[in-house]
Amino acid sequence: MAEPKHGDSVKVVTRDKEYFGILMPRPAMLGSEHAILKLDSGYNIGISNKKIKEIVLIKASEPRVRKKVPLKKYPKLPTVLILSTGGTISSKIDYRSGGVSADYSAEDFVEMLPELKAIANVRASKPLSIMSEDASPSDWSLIAGEIAKEIDTVDGIVVTHGTDTLHYSTAAASFALQNLGKPVIFTASQRSIDRGSSDAFMNLLCAVRAAAVFDFGGVATCLHATSSDDYCLLIRGTKVRKMHTSRRDAFRPINEKALAKVLADGNIEVINPHYHKRHDGAITLKNSFEKKVALVLVHPGMDPGVIDYYLEKGCKGIVLSATGLGHLPVNNRKHSLLPQLKKASKKGIPVIITSQCLYGAVHPFVYTNLRRVSMEGGGIFAEDMLPEVAFVKLAWVLGQATDYETVKRMMLESVAGEINLRHLDDEFLT
Amino acid sequence: MAEPKHGDSVKVVTRDKEYFGILMPRPAMLGSEHAILKLDSGYNIGISNKKIKEIVLIKASEPRVRKKVPLKKYPKLPTVLILSTGGTISSKIDYRSGGVSADYSAEDFVEMLPELKAIANVRASKPLSIMSEDASPSDWSLIAGEIAKEIDTVDGIVVTHGTDTLHYSTAAASFALQNLGKPVIFTASQRSIDRGSSDAFMNLLCAVRAAAVFDFGGVATCLHATSSDDYCLLIRGTKVRKMHTSRRDAFRPINEKALAKVLADGNIEVINPHYHKRHDGAITLKNSFEKKVALVLVHPGMDPGVIDYYLEKGCKGIVLSATGLGHLPVNNRKHSLLPQLKKASKKGIPVIITSQCLYGAVHPFVYTNLRRVSMEGGGIFAEDMLPEVAFVKLAWVLGQATDYETVKRMMLESVAGEINLRHLDDEFLT
Repeated sequence: MAEPKHGDSVKVVTRDKEYFGILMPRPAMLGSEHAILKLDSGYNIGISNKKIKEIVLIKASEPRVRKKVPLKKYPKLPTVLILSTGGTISSKIDYRSGGVSADYSAEDFVEMLPELKAIANVRASKPLSIMSEDASPSDWSLIAGEIAKEIDTVDGIVVTHGTDTLHYSTAAASFALQNLGKPVIFTASQRSIDRGSSDAFMNLLCAVRAAAVFDFGGVATCLHATSSDDYCLLIRGTKVRKMHTSRRDAFRPINEKALAKVLADGNIEVINPHYHKRHDGAITLKNSFEKKVALVLVHPGMDPGVIDYYLEKGCKGIVLSATGLGHLPVNNRKHSLLPQLKKASKKGIPVIITSQCLYGAVHPFVYTNLRRVSMEGGGIFAEDMLPEVAFVKLAWVLGQATDYETVKRMMLESVAGEINLRHLDDEFLT
Repeated sequence: MAEPKHGDSVKVVTRDKEYFGILMPRPAMLGSEHAILKLDSGYNIGISNKKIKEIVLIKASEPRVRKKVPLKKYPKLPTVLILSTGGTISSKIDYRSGGVSADYSAEDFVEMLPELKAIANVRASKPLSIMSEDASPSDWSLIAGEIAKEIDTVDGIVVTHGTDTLHYSTAAASFALQNLGKPVIFTASQRSIDRGSSDAFMNLLCAVRAAAVFDFGGVATCLHATSSDDYCLLIRGTKVRKMHTSRRDAFRPINEKALAKVLADGNIEVINPHYHKRHDGAITLKNSFEKKVALVLVHPGMDPGVIDYYLEKGCKGIVLSATGLGHLPVNNRKHSLLPQLKKASKKGIPVIITSQCLYGAVHPFVYTNLRRVSMEGGGIFAEDMLPEVAFVKLAWVLGQATDYETVKRMMLESVAGEINLRHLDDEFLT
């Protein structure tokens, strides 16, 4: 019998115990003294070679053979394009590293999930294949460009994406796709699609359903609403945030209600009707984003020099994730950010004030210190915009305009539902 | 009749309308063309001088006379010390600026809230008077020092504090006060105490009650649990965060349940019994915090040079608020942070990985990119610690130890309940 290789199912026999799992490569830092086994629970354990009496091959790993079957078209069904960009939803376990990385494309989704064919005639395209922590503003431009190129040929578009920076990308698409008249639904998964427990299948089914039939012209996310597989939420692309590292229902609406539920049976129930309906107007693509924009977290004892650093590097705009209603240190001799705000103001560099609380709006007047930030420092208070959304928006606004007053005016206007002045009591932590 | 002055109640008569409110000083940037009036709603309006026909004095502002009545002691009641440090709970409207700034002391609280005398013999001290956005690590040291000095003379301590950085300060006190055997309860208010709608009164009553009688040796916050005045929550000082800019129930437990409810009738109902009880052991004060620590928000398109900036400035430790399970850009040619992580690692500078999701834990192995951060970059994955708490803890750990391995070990041990490995399904967004 052949020597067990990485990726094979094996039994590891030690003096005290037998372990069943998949043999993994040894991370370099652990040296060669341990065998690494991925247990059925998904966790890896290291077993000292000294303890191992035998490693028995149970089943050799099989190279995955991908069947490429051309997608068939059905009359009368809506047409949906799935743009896959990478992320966990496109991922499988990589036996070289034991980790997970992006591989599957939209065509594979249709193979794995034939139910999709009952919802829509699905077309597939794979403009990108990255994990979303590696996404940058040039990827936002690329994704928006692909959407604008294809939107007239379909009834709706689904974008599959990594979860990590999904809400940055949905905000970017929301701003870049002006006068969008069809649904552009971003979906993702928290567990890789090659696992039985993956949330990818329901998310994809609901997203394709929403793209096919929902009467909506705009950008939204579609992911699990709860930790069960009961329904998904459609959340506006500028009012959504990843609020949990691992739960299926990690994506939550912030500072407004979700737009609608997509039920497992395909029905869509509207929750918050404040959105644009489908229309035939032509889309305007504005997908240029200024790259020299910073997003800075304000904290006690922070070094004001970091703002000088950005100003000296030629940064064109700064978003501060401030505390509470938009506070910064202003009276603390060592940590006051007021001198930096004044310097930015003098240079015509907009400084946008948001809150690290995430929920609720900032306000330039309630406290004496807030007045100093707004009046002396020229801070632009971005209402109830999330820090991430204000960051994406500032990059976008600076891609369209450079005049300070125009930038300020655009930042304070709601372009894609990113500012909500009608807060309801039951929106908090839902 | 005298000319109305700033702070006076007035009626402003224009051609079309009469406005009632308090006459405010004109912000310099508005020039002298407008009169500013604070309406009863709390909002300010500007009225063009050209439109004003008359300003009629209704009631002149009265200088506030403070009665200092020495606090009386009752036999058998527990003794509670209120340390006031500033914040909205100590604030009143400042007619010079029209904003709110810190003024009231703990003794004033007892004057305003005589019910406190039925709960405890209250002593008062005012070691600080700042708004908490101006707080810095030296203030954390000062507050912890005051607590350590007084704790043996009382049954419990209440610290009143601003809300903005309250959770940074409670984390600091949690680490600095080792082997704390009595309750140290931080409270605050979202609306100033001179307003009828202030949340200060219930928060103070519940906090003093908890400090007086709760069988708890540790640091917790005590603030409104809901937007009504029904009860307060005691939340562990290392597992609490300000999650809303303005709601009374802004402070929420993250990644574990609140410890207990303090009901309006004074009863305390335990929710989560995983805390230390009161004990007579001696407190150990470890209140030195390293000041050169940075907390950096990771985002798409970020400039890796900001990490070089901190390293070159002699920063002793960096906390990254990364995405998802602890991701950073690692494969993006322009934005990868791996070279900076390797540089820090080479210099022996610890880089702590937390998640901007806030809820949930980070993990160094699930994804290939995470392995690169942990194995190649040496990132220290801080379990389910909040980014802010990891920042405060790193400053504290570096105040106690400088050896890299010791720092790493201490960061990964739960010193004050800041790491919780027993997550429950119903802890999310509560």
